[in-house]
Amino acid sequence: MVFYFIGLGLSNPEDISVRGLRLVQGAKRVYLEMYTAILMASQEEIEKTYERKVILADRTMVEQESDIMLENADKEDVCFLVVGDVFAATTHSDLVLRCKEKNVPYEVLHNASIMTAVGCCGLQLYNFGETVSFCFWDDSWQPDSYYDKIVKNRKLEYHTLCYDIKVKEQTIQNLMKGNNIFEPPRYMKTHEAAQQLLDIIERVRAEGEVSRETQCVAIARVGAKDQKMASGTLEELAKIDLGAPLHCFIVTGKLHPMEEEFLAKLLSQES
Amino acid sequence: MVFYFIGLGLSNPEDISVRGLRLVQGAKRVYLEMYTAILMASQEEIEKTYERKVILADRTMVEQESDIMLENADKEDVCFLVVGDVFAATTHSDLVLRCKEKNVPYEVLHNASIMTAVGCCGLQLYNFGETVSFCFWDDSWQPDSYYDKIVKNRKLEYHTLCYDIKVKEQTIQNLMKGNNIFEPPRYMKTHEAAQQLLDIIERVRAEGEVSRETQCVAIARVGAKDQKMASGTLEELAKIDLGAPLHCFIVTGKLHPMEEEFLAKLLSQES
Repeated sequence: MVFYFIGLGLSNPEDISVRGLRLVQGAKRVYLEMYTAILMASQEEIEKTYERKVILADRTMVEQESDIMLENADKEDVCFLVVGDVFAATTHSDLVLRCKEKNVPYEVLHNASIMTAVGCCGLQLYNFGETVSFCFWDDSWQPDSYYDKIVKNRKLEYHTLCYDIKVKEQTIQNLMKGNNIFEPPRYMKTHEAAQQLLDIIERVRAEGEVSRETQCVAIARVGAKDQKMASGTLEELAKIDLGAPLHCFIVTGKLHPMEEEFLAKLLSQES
Repeated sequence: MVFYFIGLGLSNPEDISVRGLRLVQGAKRVYLEMYTAILMASQEEIEKTYERKVILADRTMVEQESDIMLENADKEDVCFLVVGDVFAATTHSDLVLRCKEKNVPYEVLHNASIMTAVGCCGLQLYNFGETVSFCFWDDSWQPDSYYDKIVKNRKLEYHTLCYDIKVKEQTIQNLMKGNNIFEPPRYMKTHEAAQQLLDIIERVRAEGEVSRETQCVAIARVGAKDQKMASGTLEELAKIDLGAPLHCFIVTGKLHPMEEEFLAKLLSQES
């Protein structure tokens, strides 16, 4: 039998593929990975749509107790559900290697990822450079190294896709004490991302490759019925709250004429 | 009502999402775009799975006669099915703009794309640079400008995803004469891609950023049950035929230790 890695796509439980749903309904056990990303749906809604119970798999289970998940997977079908596409997060490569080591046959059902869905704003995917993960700042910790990656991309004329999701993170204090206490999930909003970039420009560095006039795109809830997009300068987008998560933010590189036309025509009315 | 752009994913008709299938079955008209890519399924198999007829949409229809497709889409649901994710090809941005201009509400259902599914080989998506399209050579036309993009990526330590699909292409002769005659579809195989790169290195340029020893990865039929992967030097992969289409080929940039480990463990047994 087979251990199935099944991508769930981006927004609602019905984004699972027809084949994926059939496998889920026929599997002996179904694990749902919800710590690197979230669907815009609760576990209850997911179980209702799939018409079966799922087991939440947290980071500890996937990274350290994967043998529990793989148990008997050579004799019965087991599904492992991952939001987005399956190989965005490193940890799932580890799980593939464990399958190989234990001679458990595995299959991958791919699905939508934010990394290509972002093309819905009209920017060409081949003009994107390395994706950047933002960091939430607090009083004592305000890292800005991701700024360098945006600058690197812009020098190459590439756009930069930025997002930040923190699910089941621990404070440094709890981590050091070994307390199994997790912080509530946090999702960066586009206006917060824009403001943080403005802060970096102002406090840390002179205006250089990124300025308050840099053209950016803000997207919320990609693929959902209430998807929202806006384009504008960094300064403008720092003032627009696109509402509920998930958000992603794009710092453009060199805009090609067709991309400019698309942003102008599409987003002027949509934002 | 709504004009739905529906991504079909990569391999078989059941890769459509549960929501996508419901929309297809309830729509007034369903168009299937099959000129920028193919599913590993025929129109008949697709219609059988979806339990309804689909209209093949060729390049002319999508690019020049889109008003036919959009007809009454403000009054009844129309689906436009696209292999992979929806915004890999420019033309679909045009169609979105036409919706905006004609005040036709539209929605996008994203799905898997080769651009993220390629992560199944263990290479990290954020280490990929610009994707490169190969060109089939003939006696009189042997372009090699894509080589420069691979070199550019390698200088930045990025991997390069390469593929080439030619569906419904016309010869220059037929194009100039205005003959509506299309060539049979062609899909580059990984060993052909590797051989072409070896030819470029040998005939056109000195060995530089890419050599016959450069580590590459060959993947066939991503997401299908008979998916195949192999890793090796450019020279080695020029000798391995992975069989039926679709194929994609990766020229690695700088391999990180975890990626090396993954390639070694996973692909040594799989190829």
